[in-house]
This record gives sequence, structure tokens and C-alpha cells, in this order.
Amino acid sequence: MNDERVDGRKLRFEHRRAEVLRAATEHALDHGLANLSLRKVAQSVGVSHATLVHHFSTKDELVAEIVDLVLAQSLALPDLADDDPEPLETIWRRATSDEGRRYVRLFTAITGHAMHDNPTLRDAVARSMQQRTSLLAAGLVRHGCPEAEAAALATSMLATLRGLLVDLLATDDEKRVRAAFEDLAGELGRRSARWPPPDVQS
Amino acid sequence: MNDERVDGRKLRFEHRRAEVLRAATEHALDHGLANLSLRKVAQSVGVSHATLVHHFSTKDELVAEIVDLVLAQSLALPDLADDDPEPLETIWRRATSDEGRRYVRLFTAITGHAMHDNPTLRDAVARSMQQRTSLLAAGLVRHGCPEAEAAALATSMLATLRGLLVDLLATDDEKRVRAAFEDLAGELGRRSARWPPPDVQS
Repeated sequence: MNDERVDGRKLRFEHRRAEVLRAATEHALDHGLANLSLRKVAQSVGVSHATLVHHFSTKDELVAEIVDLVLAQSLALPDLADDDPEPLETIWRRATSDEGRRYVRLFTAITGHAMHDNPTLRDAVARSMQQRTSLLAAGLVRHGCPEAEAAALATSMLATLRGLLVDLLATDDEKRVRAAFEDLAGELGRRSARWPPPDVQS
Repeated sequence: MNDERVDGRKLRFEHRRAEVLRAATEHALDHGLANLSLRKVAQSVGVSHATLVHHFSTKDELVAEIVDLVLAQSLALPDLADDDPEPLETIWRRATSDEGRRYVRLFTAITGHAMHDNPTLRDAVARSMQQRTSLLAAGLVRHGCPEAEAAALATSMLATLRGLLVDLLATDDEKRVRAAFEDLAGELGRRSARWPPPDVQS
């Protein structure tokens, strides 16, 4: 315990650093990563360039921390409450809210950046996708999906949801994409009707 | 007709321009658009920087032409032959071939770039998605899908396929993603069994 004595200055430093990171992430949510520079972020966040360099050293380090934050936040979106009567609708409503769209937009931009010559970013995206798939698969099993098909269904559902959201952000065709989401929900309803009742499984 | 007399030099110029564009597109397929510069492309294609500027003026113009070419090519991928016994499997096999993956990777990178502050790129991606959806919807109707559900199903199917391909490129988890594709194909088979037989529809 004595080794973990709190140093007031260090705490203020950490607090300030987290605050700057949050503000830099807001900047990335609005403008993406493509033209991000420490100078622009410093200006937008309202700190000096020297302060930013002091906290994050390089643009790459700052981007890495923004990406971790955004992937963790995107990961939180599809959490399913076990007593939610319409979990899929809840996921969709959250992801298509104004705030949800900002995260999906930056997640899509990050995924695009991860496609070429960027193994660190690619690993972060891969880890996020695998974690989300496992979380959703576990949620599906709790909702009665047979274990044997949970991973494939979770993979396919997340792919569809991501794909629909990208379509929505690119085309703004709310009506067609909403119809496709309802089609997905209807098919999933028909499918879950084939699952054995929970008491048979346990 | 006389107005369209062929100028030999102009033809050679156009031919040379198309050849440079194809080579520049190969460069983008390998390295993406993020760090693309006229100088790097000139070096990789084996022409002088002056020649590249002569043909394309600016990096933005070159990128716009590469994007058009890649989106048109990605658009060609999901064409369904009416007598193909397993059209979905054919689409998947083409998209996951080495050459298909290069196009999907660049398409994903382009989509990522289209997310922030780039209305031209966003319009190009939106147009490509809408065209692909219409093409697939028409193909589904030819395969017996009721008109009323064709647009929603085409939107959802393309979203799933794009999402699965991005998952595959990011995670390299061939087994899990292939299982999800087979799950999708199985569900589609069950669904099409509910469609009225073609002679009832016509």
C-alpha cells in the first residue's frame, strides 16, 4: 500500500492527460483521422502544441490512444440487457442515434485505415471485432441460441449491422436501410422460433 | 464523321494515360490511398513526375479516377449468372480470391476515407452501393424473390457480405467467417423455399 502513495501532482497530470485525450477523441469523431495533426488537435482542444507533445510524444501515440478509446466505446454499444424485450432494436436505436453515428463513422474510418500497411491498427480492429463477436455469441446463447451455431450467427449479425450502418452513413437512405434492418429482425425472429425452449437446453 | 478524324498522337496519348491509370490503380490496390502521393506513384509506375502531372494535374484528380475504376470493378463482382446453380457461393469465391481481396481491401479503405469531410468520395461510394443493391435486387427477383422484399433483402445481403469480408480481412479468421457465410447461405436457402414458385408470379 505504501508503494502506491498518491502524488498530488501526478494525479493532476493524469487527470489533465485524460481530459486532453477525451477532447482529442471528440476532434477525431468530428473530423476523422485522415488529416489529423498534433497542431490541429492542439488548436481545437485549446492546449499548446508543447502540452500535447508533453502528454503524447507523437501523433501516432495519440492516434493509438484515440483508437483504443473509440473501439472500447463501440464495443460497449451492442451490450444486451438480458431482460430487454427487443435487444436488437435497442442496439439499432443506439447505433443510429446522433452520438452512435459519430462512433460508427470513426470506427468505419479506422477500419479503412487498418486495411493497408498498418499492422498496429489492424490488430486493434481485429481484437475489437473478435471481442464483440464473443460477447454477442454469449448473449445469443443466453437467449436460447444453440451453442453450435452461436459464433456463426454472431459473426453474421455483426457483419450485417456494421454493413447496414455503413450503407446508412454513405447513402443517407434511411428508409431502405431501416427496411433492411426490419427484414433482418424478422428473419431472426423466425430463426429463434426454431431454437429449443430454454428448459430443454439447461 | 469527318469531325471525328483520329489523331494518331492523341490516340497514343489516351492509350498512355489509361496505361498509367491502370498502373496507379495497382499501386493503390497494394498500398491504399492514405499515403499516396504523385511522387510515389510516379516512382512505382515508372514514369516521371512531370508525366503524371501532365496526365492527371493533381493527386485529387488521380485519386478520383482510381476510385471510379475500383468501384466499377467492385460493382462487377456480384453479377449473378442466371444459370449459376450456386450464385452466392460464386460471389463469395470471387470476393475471397487473392484478387478479390485486393479490391475489397481498397473498397473498404475508400469507404473509410469517405466518412469525414470528403463529399466527392462519399457520393461515389453511395452511388456504388445503390447501384449494387439495385443489381442484386433485380437478380433476386429473377430467382423468385417477391418484389416487395427484394430491396430490403438485397440491402441486407450486401451489408452482410461486405461486413463478413471486412471481418475476414481484419481478423484473418477464415474458419469463423466461412462458417458465418455458410450460415447466411443456409438461411437464404430456407427463405427462398418460402417464395412462391416462378410460374405463380409471372
